[in-house]
Parts: sequence; structure tokens; C-alpha cells
Amino acid sequence: MINFERIRSDTPAAGRQSYLHNAGAALMPVSVVAAMKDHIDLEAEIGGYAAADREAERLEAVYDSVARLLNAGRDEIALVENATVAWQMAFYAMPFKAGDRILTAEAEYAANYVAYLQMCRRTGARVEVVPNDASGQLDVAALERMIDGKVKLISVTWVPTNGGLVNPAARIGTVARTYAIPYLVDACQAVGQMEVDVEAIGCDMLSATGRKFLRGPRGTGFLYVRRSMLHRLEPPMIDHHAAPWVERDRYRLRGDARRFENWENNYAARLGLGAAVDYALDLGLDAIEKRCRALANRLRAGLSGIDGLRLRDLGRSPSAIVSFTLDGHEAESVVASAAAAGIVIGTSDPASTRLDAEARSLPMLVRASPHYYNTGADIDRLVEHVARL
Amino acid sequence: MINFERIRSDTPAAGRQSYLHNAGAALMPVSVVAAMKDHIDLEAEIGGYAAADREAERLEAVYDSVARLLNAGRDEIALVENATVAWQMAFYAMPFKAGDRILTAEAEYAANYVAYLQMCRRTGARVEVVPNDASGQLDVAALERMIDGKVKLISVTWVPTNGGLVNPAARIGTVARTYAIPYLVDACQAVGQMEVDVEAIGCDMLSATGRKFLRGPRGTGFLYVRRSMLHRLEPPMIDHHAAPWVERDRYRLRGDARRFENWENNYAARLGLGAAVDYALDLGLDAIEKRCRALANRLRAGLSGIDGLRLRDLGRSPSAIVSFTLDGHEAESVVASAAAAGIVIGTSDPASTRLDAEARSLPMLVRASPHYYNTGADIDRLVEHVARL
Repeated sequence: MINFERIRSDTPAAGRQSYLHNAGAALMPVSVVAAMKDHIDLEAEIGGYAAADREAERLEAVYDSVARLLNAGRDEIALVENATVAWQMAFYAMPFKAGDRILTAEAEYAANYVAYLQMCRRTGARVEVVPNDASGQLDVAALERMIDGKVKLISVTWVPTNGGLVNPAARIGTVARTYAIPYLVDACQAVGQMEVDVEAIGCDMLSATGRKFLRGPRGTGFLYVRRSMLHRLEPPMIDHHAAPWVERDRYRLRGDARRFENWENNYAARLGLGAAVDYALDLGLDAIEKRCRALANRLRAGLSGIDGLRLRDLGRSPSAIVSFTLDGHEAESVVASAAAAGIVIGTSDPASTRLDAEARSLPMLVRASPHYYNTGADIDRLVEHVARL
Repeated sequence: MINFERIRSDTPAAGRQSYLHNAGAALMPVSVVAAMKDHIDLEAEIGGYAAADREAERLEAVYDSVARLLNAGRDEIALVENATVAWQMAFYAMPFKAGDRILTAEAEYAANYVAYLQMCRRTGARVEVVPNDASGQLDVAALERMIDGKVKLISVTWVPTNGGLVNPAARIGTVARTYAIPYLVDACQAVGQMEVDVEAIGCDMLSATGRKFLRGPRGTGFLYVRRSMLHRLEPPMIDHHAAPWVERDRYRLRGDARRFENWENNYAARLGLGAAVDYALDLGLDAIEKRCRALANRLRAGLSGIDGLRLRDLGRSPSAIVSFTLDGHEAESVVASAAAAGIVIGTSDPASTRLDAEARSLPMLVRASPHYYNTGADIDRLVEHVARL
């Protein structure tokens, strides 16, 4: 059970606005802010190296926290500067060749899709999109029919950026396991708003960010790589942390997932990430998910009564990302008018999920994403604001 | 002329210790610390996206500051999370093939060297080491004799990590220009302690870090890529910031150096980097260099009178990095005893510059690196401490 009073006092700025932009970057709890600022002060006092040495134990504990968050081993975790780098280090490590097939989903994120395109140009591999089922989720039966010996990767954004869709990550994982195909999950919008269990999903690699529902700092991310997969992946780029220089003409790749890291880091941000993960674990992801869904459903229910408003969320059981359009109002103007009323929401650009946006002829969308620290009044305020437009 | 009183009051911790570890991570001035902490507070108050929007102008100005520091254009600058990534994004963008030659220097840094080795394994290219001249600097005449049509890159660490050596970056640049060979400079230990002028050097690419002599935050770095080189380099990995997704099957690489960046960043650290660069520019790199050299030479003069102490610095005009060994004392024990006496210095591991260390049979070295904010008394204190051992 979530102690709501404590959460609100840990998030003082949540009382000064209706912050519903958690799919962009959430408000950080005070423990995250303090972890960062304290470490910066320590660095200023004793220098950046001594500060990292002094906090070595807490810095190592961040791996344990992230591992616990994902139900993984600490040797399967790499801490990197953002989710894009996490995802890239895994994806670009895959040894594609001409004719290989990469299967992805309709609502795939732009960052990943341009990487597929680059890889395809570079190697002659092909990227193919698994169609959606009637609900808008990736059609798992269709995925299975597309499998052949040429499929070298299944790579899916679990919770796409542009709405409530939750792709069936675990059922995709079952297919991947059945056919022994490497499976990469982009979990940016999933971590921090719901249970993320790499065993339940059955993925080989999973990337995520700190700044969204996890409530961590900007410029933080992490990568999970399954132990059995690690040794098959040579990182696309290495330094002497990833691969110590052991002899004149030889390096030795680390045996753990830190082969995907490099030596230098922003340790203040890393401690902030650890504090954010600990905060989420302490509340419990199950309780967080329940509250997020409840608030999002309250928002959808309220919005659905508004004339000219169209909810744009897909899938059977939508996440805490609520997307909509309002006839006669550009998304940006809805966001701006809400901001003026103390309600923070965002937009979703069709270019960020181009395939899905083209298939559904989506314009710029309004995107509102509540979190467990929001009140019902925050939700109602947005509904009333939109209703008045 | 440096206003020393102001500098000391901007670096309060410098009065509480003799901080001579600037080749590791320097003490940050108060303006850098404030830039970071203020931005973190802003993020906590209004959210990470709104905070970046509100500070957009100052964030853009960081490019101008770095460009001015390097005598480059702002479109030639990429801001990334550390110097390793900066270097890697340039190096791994080079299209090597079997038989190509990469020329580097004897004291090359481990991070770079393992990347050469990986690239050579991957493509069949070869890395070759240009010998030193009698002073220990890269022998520019020997470099020129090694040039042929197979040389596809000259890649040199300007100021190596393990001592006072300053490689003749500009004379290497003249050779690179004469034979039209791309030229990559690792300037990690150069920026912030001396003038760095990409036109004077004649390099095509230059990477550097924020945390060393530049006195910026950990987890910051930048890359310069000459305008004429930009379009010949496709980044090894891309996202939708580097390469917007313009059509279903097409991305368009950015025309500026930001094609080597990715979308998500630690903006607090970036603002800290900007503040650090501005601070250095305000003091003037020429004045900084003079004072750094003077303090380092005072240190060398003092140390050279100590029995059993061997200075290990190479080159004709050594930098502010002073390396030495002391007979009968392990480097780590010298560092630890100095720390106990309030003097912060570091070590240099032979594995970080393996070729040079093997050629000179170097053990672990003691490394002391003064900066302009140090006093003569800091230097003398270290000399006296070592003399007493």
C-alpha cells in the first residue's frame, strides 16, 4: 500500500502544479536530488576521483538495485548514459549479414528505427514490421508465422512513446525462446510504471532510461544482457574498461555486461539513478502500476466524454500514457494552454513513431502521463481544462 | 594576468588541501558546481523537459564556448558524455579496410589502443607505432617516412596520461595536411591547461574531456570534427537526433557535428561544462599555461634534488603532468602517505600506456599535476613530503 502523504512530501513540486508529463521526464523525489547534489558537493570538496572512491560501495549497489528492479543478476547490468546508448550497444553488437531479417513492431520508436535502417544499409539485412492485431498490439501469431532461419533478431518497444499501447512482451518472448532468436526489448516507458521481469518477458537484452517513470535523473540509462548472450556479443566500440589491454596486441573483453560500458561516468547521476530505483522498489512496482493505471483510466474516462476529443490509445490494457486529439485544436496549443493553467503535459510527434502514425494518419498528439504521485484532482483539472477549450 | 585571490575564493576546497591531481579530475570552480546544482533544482521543480527548454539558450551557448576554446565553428562541435565516446564516435566512423594502416604514437592511451586492436581484428587494418625521437616525443621525420597510400589515419594522444610529454601535435598536423591523411587528436590532458587551436594543430578531429584541466564535471566530453570532414563520416551508431527519420525507409544525417551526439543528455552536466569552459576562457589559456608550466617546473626542480627519485617525464617542454618513481617506495604508498598529509596526487598504471611502459620498463608511476589555482606552497609541501620518505 502506497503512503501517499510521504510521496507528496518527497515530491514538493507536485503540489505546485499538475505534473502529467511522466512519459517525458518525471519529477524526481527529494532523495534523487539529494543523492546528486551531495555527490557534486563531495566532488567539489575532495575531487572527482576521491569522491567516486569514497562512494564506491554505494556506486556498486546501483547495479544491485537495477538488477533487483529487472529480476536479473548484477553481472547482467550495464549502467550507461542513456537508454539510447544502452539499446545501441546491444543492437549494434549483433552480427548481421546480408539477407538477415530483423522483426520489429508497428509503433517502433524513431531512435531504434533509424538504427535498423543504418544497419540494413551497412550489412544488407532487412527490417520487417510485424502487423498489429485488431486491438493494435503486435500480433503474436503473425510474428510466429514470419519466423524463419533468416530472422536474427526480434526487437520491440514494449510501451511505445505515442500512447497507451502495451505490446505483449512476454508472449513475444515465448516465440523468441521457441525459435531461439535473440530478443531485444526497449523498456523506456515501462520501467518505473510497471513490473519489469526479464525472466517473465524472456528477453535476452533490455534497455531503459532513468528519467521517465523511474523518476531518475536525465542522462541515465541501463542495459540488461542475459548471461548466456553476453559472450556472443562483442560491443560495437570498446575502451580499456570494457576490454582491458592485457598484452601489446591483445585486449580481453570483460565477462560481465560492463563490457558495454566505458570508463568515465557521471557518478552524481548514477547515484541519482540508484536512489530512484530504490525509491520505486521501496514503494513496490505492483502498487505503482495499479495506481498509474487507475489514474490513467480515470483520465481516459473523463476525456472520453468531451465533444470532439478522440483518444488515440491502442491495445487491450493501456498503460499510464494517454494520447488524444481535439478537433479544431492543435496539440501544441492544447499543451500551451494547459501549461498556462499549471498543468504539465506534452505532445507526441508523428515522426517519433512514423510507421504507426502513417498507418493511422495521426497528427501531432497530446500526451498526458500521470504517475502514482498525482492526485485525482490533477486528473480532473486536466479533464476540465480540455473540456473548456 | 590571473587574479589569484579570485581564483582561490572560487575554489574554496583548494585552501583545505594541496590538490595536485588535475590530470585525474580537477577541483571545480564554484560557478561549475552552481550551474549543475541550479539546473538539478530547476528540473526537480518544473521537470526535466521544461528545464531544458527554459535553459535552451544557455545550453546552446555551450557549443559557442567550446568552439571558442578550440578556435572552431559551433557546427563542428558535438557535446557527448565523455572523451572516450567523443573519440570513439570519430574513430569508429572511419571506413577502414584490410591493409589500411593506422599510425599512432608510443605513449598512446589504453582506451584508444584497444579500439585500434578491435578495428584491426574487424577489418584487417593494421596499427603501427611511430617511434619517438631522442627527447621521447613522436619523431615527425619518422612519421613522414612511414606515410604511404595505405595510411588512412594518424591518431595521436597529444599529452599522454603518464607524464609530462607533449607530442608535437602541430608538426604532425603539417604532415597529415601534406599527405591529405585524416588526423585525430586525443586532447584530454591538453584542454584547460594550454592553448588548443584546431587550426594551428591542423587536425580533422579532436576529442577532449571536461573533468581534467578544464575543471568541468565528470561525465562530460566533446568532439571537434572539421567541416570538410563531417560529410565523409557516418557515425558508427545513430538515433533520431543524429539522423532524423524523414521517410519510412530513410533517415537524413545531420549536416553538423551533432550527428555524433544522441538525443538524451545530462543537461546539468552540460551546463557545468559550459561554465568550466567560460571560466578558462575568462582567465585566458595563455596565462593558465604559463602558470601551470611554472608550477610543474618548480615541482620538477624540487623533486630532482631528492635522492633515489627519478623523474619520468619525456619531451622537450613538459606539461603540468609530473611523473616520478622513488626507490624503495611503491607509487601507491607514496600517494597514500601524501593523502594522509593533505596532498592529493595520483598514480599512472603501466597498463594505461602499455607500449611506452614496456619500452621504458616503467613500474607504476607517481603522478602529480598542479593547476593554476595551486600555490607555490602546495608544490613545496609535496617536495618536502617526498623528501622525508
